[in-house]
Amino acid sequence: MSRERSYEVRAIGTVRGGRGEPVDDGWAAVESRIELDPEVLEEAAARGLDSFSHVDVVYVFDRVDPGSVCTGARRPRGRADWPSVGILAQRAKDRPNRIGVSTCELRGVRWPVLEVRGLDAVDGTPVLDVKPHVSGFVPKGAVREPGWAKELMAGYW
Amino acid sequence: MSRERSYEVRAIGTVRGGRGEPVDDGWAAVESRIELDPEVLEEAAARGLDSFSHVDVVYVFDRVDPGSVCTGARRPRGRADWPSVGILAQRAKDRPNRIGVSTCELRGVRWPVLEVRGLDAVDGTPVLDVKPHVSGFVPKGAVREPGWAKELMAGYW
Repeated sequence: MSRERSYEVRAIGTVRGGRGEPVDDGWAAVESRIELDPEVLEEAAARGLDSFSHVDVVYVFDRVDPGSVCTGARRPRGRADWPSVGILAQRAKDRPNRIGVSTCELRGVRWPVLEVRGLDAVDGTPVLDVKPHVSGFVPKGAVREPGWAKELMAGYW
Repeated sequence: MSRERSYEVRAIGTVRGGRGEPVDDGWAAVESRIELDPEVLEEAAARGLDSFSHVDVVYVFDRVDPGSVCTGARRPRGRADWPSVGILAQRAKDRPNRIGVSTCELRGVRWPVLEVRGLDAVDGTPVLDVKPHVSGFVPKGAVREPGWAKELMAGYW
């Protein structure tokens, strides 16, 4: 496991509009856009995307200082009433590689802009990928999760 | 949009076992493991992960030649009966940044190994992130997707 494998990734676009600063809750109504980069993608890259209602967006939490990334455990949101759990057991932004993944509503496609709603990423966030949200990728069968995670999500959207 | 923004990401672990070669369909029953890298993560990083039934795994399609990445449109699986759609409108592996995201069942956690089922990544795949699958991140309301995407997924799991 000691062979280090690194990869260079490049923004294919940028989140514009919406919130200017990270806020924990109330993301559902946030409207913003993803401006795709015509130097990286051809216009055809977005063809047919408008036949999907939602997209999965992969982005970089670029405001997190790489030096402050957590590689062990922490309490979600620093809340004393929630357990200290591993960074892989929470979706906090100060995580190794600082990658966020989120599903949001796709409201419109007008090259090079995707209009979205409910994307929990601030203005200026670099986007690494946009994928169509395909219902077949949602887990079948029961999903189990701890109580603190449900509490945390109660006001998130 | 001309300011190029690149980021270096590093594998936090590796997929081991399961399939040795990429295959289109029948992933649901594939059992494999994610071996986390103790040089990147502390053991505490996985603490509490076992209270989730599923994880969202972010990985690199590292067998795709960066030079063969599609930046425009293509027919999913090359099927003549499906439309030519943009690379952002499909989940194909030859995409910009070669990043895959998939949700799978978490069967067990025994540091530094996560036992998983239904992860659609081949043996040796570098893993960039593991996140708990939180049901609150699944879209509320109706999901719309085109017919070809449903057909494609019919045999995927």
